[in-house]
Amino acid sequence: MPADAYDQTKTALLAMGRQRVWSLMATLFGDLAQAEGSAIDGPVLSSIMAEMDVRPEAVRVALYRLRNDGWITSEKHGRTGRHALTPTSRTETRRASKRIYASPVAQLDSWQLVLSEDTEGSAAMIRSGFVPLLPRVYLGGATALAPAECLALKGATVPDWLHSQIAPLMLEAEYNALLPPLQNAHDRLEAGQLNPLQTAVLRCLLVHNWRRILLRHPALPRALLPDGWPGHRCHVLVDALLARFPRPVIEDIVTI
Amino acid sequence: MPADAYDQTKTALLAMGRQRVWSLMATLFGDLAQAEGSAIDGPVLSSIMAEMDVRPEAVRVALYRLRNDGWITSEKHGRTGRHALTPTSRTETRRASKRIYASPVAQLDSWQLVLSEDTEGSAAMIRSGFVPLLPRVYLGGATALAPAECLALKGATVPDWLHSQIAPLMLEAEYNALLPPLQNAHDRLEAGQLNPLQTAVLRCLLVHNWRRILLRHPALPRALLPDGWPGHRCHVLVDALLARFPRPVIEDIVTI
Repeated sequence: MPADAYDQTKTALLAMGRQRVWSLMATLFGDLAQAEGSAIDGPVLSSIMAEMDVRPEAVRVALYRLRNDGWITSEKHGRTGRHALTPTSRTETRRASKRIYASPVAQLDSWQLVLSEDTEGSAAMIRSGFVPLLPRVYLGGATALAPAECLALKGATVPDWLHSQIAPLMLEAEYNALLPPLQNAHDRLEAGQLNPLQTAVLRCLLVHNWRRILLRHPALPRALLPDGWPGHRCHVLVDALLARFPRPVIEDIVTI
Repeated sequence: MPADAYDQTKTALLAMGRQRVWSLMATLFGDLAQAEGSAIDGPVLSSIMAEMDVRPEAVRVALYRLRNDGWITSEKHGRTGRHALTPTSRTETRRASKRIYASPVAQLDSWQLVLSEDTEGSAAMIRSGFVPLLPRVYLGGATALAPAECLALKGATVPDWLHSQIAPLMLEAEYNALLPPLQNAHDRLEAGQLNPLQTAVLRCLLVHNWRRILLRHPALPRALLPDGWPGHRCHVLVDALLARFPRPVIEDIVTI
């Protein structure tokens, strides 16, 4: 029964790490209502969140917080609230989407090692897409932009031990934990067997758990990662599932 | 007066750092009697060492030590002792001579950065001609041979701060201290104005002070060193002075 597989997937993905309601809601808006002019009506939002076992009060608190942070804007249309991303959060969501919804087909494979003058500027290097391997030593894709004063050397053949040292920095354990529920969903959920509400929920949970790991590390070329990299396997599964369950039309989501 | 300049040079070079008699004597054999079959007779050795203000007893102690270490072999010819390098020490001396007497004309300028798997093997890396810049990070000439398991990256344009960080590792202060006496000798000592004994002493002191710094660090390409590198300026002066005062024929050295 597909409902079983759906429930199983939902439970497993909801159980991964600590899921903050406001963060889950930000993912939902990012996946379902990222398009310009797109909004989610209160009853639809409540139904989706309820389907993810979030109580109405927690939804109200999260909405309040997101509005306060300038992430969500709400308007009244008659007795119904309409919620949408703000111009700022839409821009930020779009930027993150480039990585979240990127194709898992490997592109760039060349990389660089960057040596900085001192141990400062580490946060800036990470923001620029570099992984800090050692104090003052960073690894990144060949197109990542290092500060001009740094020494940047073109990458060569990567020894196995370097792959092994990079893996934990790229959250290998987190990806390994995400793999089984994704694989199960991929093996058991069939296209067309979920209604729009279930589809919205599945997509939200997939994107949420994927992005929670993905956005905590820079994008490194495959050459720097071990063979069979779990992050890549997760990417392939997320990509396949999102394609199998396309974004529903918001108006088709039946409210409770 | 050249004798003045000679005395000044001798005093300045003898005053540099702690000059161990056995080490000074090893330098003397390396410069004066490196050729196969070459030996220094006891009276000549005593005269040269006396000219360097070493007392006869200290000469005997040093000779005893060098014989004990297998560095010097002594034979009696009638009442005269003849001292020479052993086959082993001659081989080691020849190897060191390649760097000590190398031409100061810059050759290789390409370099590499090597990343090792862990912090072990640092001593082996230094022996292989690498400078340890950071734990696990080494710099060396492009022809230096890193262990196969290391990551070796071709060098690029060197930023100024890297030059500054390399300088102390390449004993910049020591070279800066050696520069003034070398410059003074170069400016004031004229070719042909020293007798064979003085020439042997000058060469010994030049080579000794030069090698004491040189052999404590690997040979790095000029690209990795700051402009006007004092080590290079010392090299040019030592090279010019050794050429101006060629190795004397041992038999021409007049004993006291």
